[in-house]
Amino acid sequence: MRATIIHAPGDIRVEDRDYPTVQQPTDVVVKVTAACVCGSDLWPYRGVKPVHKPSAIGHEFIGVVESVGTEVTTLTAGDFVIAPFVISCGKCPPCLDGVTVACELLAGWGGKDSTGLPVDGGQGQAVRVPLADSTLVKVPGVTEPDSALRKSLLTLSDVMATGHHAALSAGVTAGKTVVVVGDGAVGLCGVLAAKRLGASRIIAMSRHEDRQKVATEFGATDIVSERGEEGVAKVRELLGGVLADSVLECVGTKESMEQALHSVRPGGSLGFVGVPTGGAEIPLRYLFDSNIHVAGGMAPARTYIPELLEDVLSGAINPGLVFDVEMPLEEAAEAYKAMDERRAIKVLLVP
Amino acid sequence: MRATIIHAPGDIRVEDRDYPTVQQPTDVVVKVTAACVCGSDLWPYRGVKPVHKPSAIGHEFIGVVESVGTEVTTLTAGDFVIAPFVISCGKCPPCLDGVTVACELLAGWGGKDSTGLPVDGGQGQAVRVPLADSTLVKVPGVTEPDSALRKSLLTLSDVMATGHHAALSAGVTAGKTVVVVGDGAVGLCGVLAAKRLGASRIIAMSRHEDRQKVATEFGATDIVSERGEEGVAKVRELLGGVLADSVLECVGTKESMEQALHSVRPGGSLGFVGVPTGGAEIPLRYLFDSNIHVAGGMAPARTYIPELLEDVLSGAINPGLVFDVEMPLEEAAEAYKAMDERRAIKVLLVP
Repeated sequence: MRATIIHAPGDIRVEDRDYPTVQQPTDVVVKVTAACVCGSDLWPYRGVKPVHKPSAIGHEFIGVVESVGTEVTTLTAGDFVIAPFVISCGKCPPCLDGVTVACELLAGWGGKDSTGLPVDGGQGQAVRVPLADSTLVKVPGVTEPDSALRKSLLTLSDVMATGHHAALSAGVTAGKTVVVVGDGAVGLCGVLAAKRLGASRIIAMSRHEDRQKVATEFGATDIVSERGEEGVAKVRELLGGVLADSVLECVGTKESMEQALHSVRPGGSLGFVGVPTGGAEIPLRYLFDSNIHVAGGMAPARTYIPELLEDVLSGAINPGLVFDVEMPLEEAAEAYKAMDERRAIKVLLVP
Repeated sequence: MRATIIHAPGDIRVEDRDYPTVQQPTDVVVKVTAACVCGSDLWPYRGVKPVHKPSAIGHEFIGVVESVGTEVTTLTAGDFVIAPFVISCGKCPPCLDGVTVACELLAGWGGKDSTGLPVDGGQGQAVRVPLADSTLVKVPGVTEPDSALRKSLLTLSDVMATGHHAALSAGVTAGKTVVVVGDGAVGLCGVLAAKRLGASRIIAMSRHEDRQKVATEFGATDIVSERGEEGVAKVRELLGGVLADSVLECVGTKESMEQALHSVRPGGSLGFVGVPTGGAEIPLRYLFDSNIHVAGGMAPARTYIPELLEDVLSGAINPGLVFDVEMPLEEAAEAYKAMDERRAIKVLLVP
């Protein structure tokens, strides 16, 4: 089969790999019908995260179950499934608490599973899925989604689940005022998640016209292009002299974290899903003085997918709009380039 | 009147001061019937916080309204009242959000009010109370509380409200497992607050027999005297191999904050009310990786008092047990000494 391999920063190749087979009785093999490039795939691509050896890459995919291990009970060949961005067991205490990203058997696509066997990356034609019952979510009644549905289903792998996590972590409920820092696919999904949870006002901080347009379609009531103190002042002005109840931080840099923190009202909440980089911290004394709640981290996508899926299937939400570019898998290198240069918000790859 | 004045670190004197009078139409004057020494009063006493000039001190008191400004509408002479540890207006956006400690007209006892007039300290015979309608809470049906009720009412000024804030910030609800770090009056009240909110298991981290006893009376199911990694291991053992859903941090040091943070399960919550000192911080990456929620800060006592008062008056809770020593106001210097040397958990002063 063909699969995307990262050899070194900037060096993405689509190569031949052995077609995966069931190796553990709890495995299934999924034929991938759509995958995509994540903002976090750009870290090794940009050399921010080291690449020690050529590795399969990609952690967002949807597809059809092809073969099934003997101990798999909830999936059969032909099922259409969504893969969350990590593998989880569903039985350990963190999984039972819904925090599947802290699973005791946690493993990632393109790495090794908990038994030490290699796992395929998501940007390929097929993937062996360990712990398939607990990892995958079956899409009921769907076998061949159309282009729009395919896009929306694929966002549930990561970006829509992550935007939802940001919104929940920021305590968004009906009537809340919200600021979203970051206009990547996750930030845009954060806007949609806040809208879905009933926010009364959603301020998207964005400087890019194409992203502003998606933000508005997703429910942003206001766009703020100013940053730093000017950005905070603008938020305060828009909200009638106060700061926001809930702020979603969807970038992870020092600057974006400060922007987000300083946009929260006393007693409000900050939900952060941007992986902290570049010295991003939250001074404890600031939290103490402001009584601001902070929560966030990797989204337990597996926990959220069933609920979000219902709204995708009913047409209530259309997160697939974050995909502005679609390419054949063979052009993965170009997909990375387009994302890296911010020519694309998010690229869907068709194997 | 007699009032407690701090002249310098270690130098507490009870001196004569002018008896307060109503100066603004929104003032009342309260005759203090009980006051007390707070852990945070020990900062200037120990020289951790500078003492620039002799200052009235004390921020927890209860008493009887004596005289009333012309614009005060909810209080009359003879009312028995509880003073929260800060003054708040009740009308600004933070107050309307319930975050009275972020009030736009916030002022402290022993400092200056929002108009620049000096305010008496709480450890004295009488206090001018600015913004009296919004600051004070009337105790219905009480004029002369007995000794036990007096103690419990006085805890609502600060320590019981603060323990409650720690528990709420740590997301304590029915059935949760809880660890409380800190066995001062606030930590003990945190135990009681967790019990009141329905925690199924409450582990108090304490090394002092007298405090362990109060913790147990307040509802602690387990006592852990180990600290650091051993303490975390003990918590994990007691909870059947997992960490706690909710952890209350009631000290504020680097060590106690780490103890608390490392006792929270993935996806659990840390509520902190210890003022961060000595480099206490929470690494953002740790929060990201663990999905731990963090909240806390100064307790909006004014918001919590009515609810807690109901339970004190019904006898459902008896937070007054934190007072293990009672002294006449004239012995304030000795009260500070006893608290400083940890001979007393909390000292009540009778003017």
